[in-house]
Amino acid sequence: MQSYPSYLLENAVAQLAKLPGIGRKSALRLALFLLKQDKEMVDDFAKALMMLKSEVKYCECCKNISDSDICSICSDESRDKSTVCVVETIKELMLVEQTGQYRGLYHVLGGVVSPMEGVHPADLEIESLIKRVAEGGVKEVILALSTTMEGDTTAFYIARKLAAFPEVSITTIARGVAIGDELQYADELTLGKSIINRIPYKN
Amino acid sequence: MQSYPSYLLENAVAQLAKLPGIGRKSALRLALFLLKQDKEMVDDFAKALMMLKSEVKYCECCKNISDSDICSICSDESRDKSTVCVVETIKELMLVEQTGQYRGLYHVLGGVVSPMEGVHPADLEIESLIKRVAEGGVKEVILALSTTMEGDTTAFYIARKLAAFPEVSITTIARGVAIGDELQYADELTLGKSIINRIPYKN
Repeated sequence: MQSYPSYLLENAVAQLAKLPGIGRKSALRLALFLLKQDKEMVDDFAKALMMLKSEVKYCECCKNISDSDICSICSDESRDKSTVCVVETIKELMLVEQTGQYRGLYHVLGGVVSPMEGVHPADLEIESLIKRVAEGGVKEVILALSTTMEGDTTAFYIARKLAAFPEVSITTIARGVAIGDELQYADELTLGKSIINRIPYKN
Repeated sequence: MQSYPSYLLENAVAQLAKLPGIGRKSALRLALFLLKQDKEMVDDFAKALMMLKSEVKYCECCKNISDSDICSICSDESRDKSTVCVVETIKELMLVEQTGQYRGLYHVLGGVVSPMEGVHPADLEIESLIKRVAEGGVKEVILALSTTMEGDTTAFYIARKLAAFPEVSITTIARGVAIGDELQYADELTLGKSIINRIPYKN
């Protein structure tokens, strides 16, 4: 156990070490870095984090984080409101947005079903998704979840719930060999899937 | 360039990305982590950083960071006040303290002389060190600086300044093959030094 020459430093290090992937050594480095900055910079830094937590809103429609009650995606009139892409967290939402290939709306679950970690369907934004679909206007729900056990379980649970709306088509993102990957290093499962789900060759 | 669904998130990410070793991707991960925590935890987190910057003091004697005007090391009556170990930053002070092998006092320079980065002797706590020695009572100054060009330059500069006090002995920490290191992987310079500075063998 390291002894700190100052309680203030020890406290700051303890707080920084709470961040994921930051150990006590890195935390000390970060604390000493902040100590070297202007007071104004450190205040701005700290306030940005407090504001993020205290002022951020969650979109009433898709549960994406937002500065207003309805997020910029849901309120964008040019987007296709009949398609809803279901993602685990806002991180995946941002990844899909970044591709520039999707012009529909989203629904952020806030996680995946994981009995091991005590995450049950009721803890996620699944009810609100079903309600959204029940209100009508949605023609397709794209399940863009990870192909982990938890992701698959969640997709299965949602698909079963959505079976009550046969007019809504449920799709999932394509699985296959990643672009730029060499075939010899692809795993059997992925390669198998990509053969089954082969598509017409276009130049 | 990523587009963030919330200005608050974007701002928090921009602030977190200012930390050394934290890119925008890690910053987003940290911001989303903080967003998942209790409001109280985030407030405590931010306040600890602000307090660190606004309330921390620097020891009037050794320039170590401290909660009071004189740090706990300088005010510790059981320590040997005639020996001063010169270190670059508080990080090195903590490392030396952790060894449990040193019972003297310290002097924190706040950096090393580096013309390339615009750090000149006047930017460091060298004058205060000379003043401290001039006031008397110091018998030995240990230069515990890195063996980089900057560290060597700084040590040389300090040693020349301290030459004005011939009664004070100037020492430097031993350089040699690290404990646990295999000899075959030691660099020639270090191995050479460790042969020149060999010590009597004790069982």
